[in-house]
Amino acid sequence: MSERARRGRPGHDQQSVLRVAIELFNRQGYDATSMGDLARELGLTKSAIYHHVPSKEHLLESAIDEALDALEASLDEVAATSDLDAGERLRAAVRGSVVVLVEHLPAVTLLLRVRGNTPAEKAALRRRREIDDRLAEMVRGAAGAGAIRGDLDPLLTSRLLFGMVNSMTEWLRDDGDVETIADTVTTLAFDGLTRHA
Amino acid sequence: MSERARRGRPGHDQQSVLRVAIELFNRQGYDATSMGDLARELGLTKSAIYHHVPSKEHLLESAIDEALDALEASLDEVAATSDLDAGERLRAAVRGSVVVLVEHLPAVTLLLRVRGNTPAEKAALRRRREIDDRLAEMVRGAAGAGAIRGDLDPLLTSRLLFGMVNSMTEWLRDDGDVETIADTVTTLAFDGLTRHA
Repeated sequence: MSERARRGRPGHDQQSVLRVAIELFNRQGYDATSMGDLARELGLTKSAIYHHVPSKEHLLESAIDEALDALEASLDEVAATSDLDAGERLRAAVRGSVVVLVEHLPAVTLLLRVRGNTPAEKAALRRRREIDDRLAEMVRGAAGAGAIRGDLDPLLTSRLLFGMVNSMTEWLRDDGDVETIADTVTTLAFDGLTRHA
Repeated sequence: MSERARRGRPGHDQQSVLRVAIELFNRQGYDATSMGDLARELGLTKSAIYHHVPSKEHLLESAIDEALDALEASLDEVAATSDLDAGERLRAAVRGSVVVLVEHLPAVTLLLRVRGNTPAEKAALRRRREIDDRLAEMVRGAAGAGAIRGDLDPLLTSRLLFGMVNSMTEWLRDDGDVETIADTVTTLAFDGLTRHA
């Protein structure tokens, strides 16, 4: 944190501007938010904001990259763990995606609202689709290897699993305990609600 | 269907106008859609559209009521079924909410995107919250009665369960088979992915 790059006036480094921008985009919508709105939120003039960030698109790209980089890194880590079977690997991937969502909640929330209106958003959707494909492939692999039940359609299962994870952006607040949440999601998904006496 | 009320020019009854409006609201956003856009989509002039519907708000209210009425009726039906224990009741409620979502997909999709910008939207959010409370209460009741596992937080469980169901609006298309989807959701939620040899 000590070497954090600063541009323009003191009091706002690029990271803190990005945090405020993501929060504002999530609150009032990316398209509906102007650089003037962001300047007002930061207590800056509209011209001073450009000392901190080159453009609104740049802020969106930074936020989306934060979320996508974290999700990809989490999957890479699971893939690199050699002592897990396909079922444990899937469970670790689900847990990892919950942890990323909780730890990068504003950025992931913004990512999930991207609709592909600009080239940057289209690129984000492509990367998101690659992640979804990797997850679906892990479900298919685990079902094929007999590591999870084989009677459910893998693609449908994958969409429901990660739909459940992603739906957390609708109600989760910053104060959620990541371990409790991750345990609940994985228990629900892998062990189910039914009580086994 | 034979007694369907018609207003204005032949070729568009109120139901078919509502279908087109919901589809348009979901595609380009309710706030961003004008009555002029809707008229164009229907091949009508902007003045002719008012022969069919009094206002844009009226269309939103009709769509939201369709979704909420169906969700409430589904829960009422489960509540009126006396021969189920609390776990079976919850399973029936989850299945019912999937069936409503599939059968009223455009209306439920629109409902879930409502953010409370107008009095009609605020009223919809209140009704939605009542439904969420009923579902959370069913989870709490089932856990308390020992009908489902008791080691998970009931509110968190409820949010994840119905977050999984609601997330289907992100990818489900009209051609989904309702029985397969409902079976997959309930199996995943109640029995889990783990294979029991």
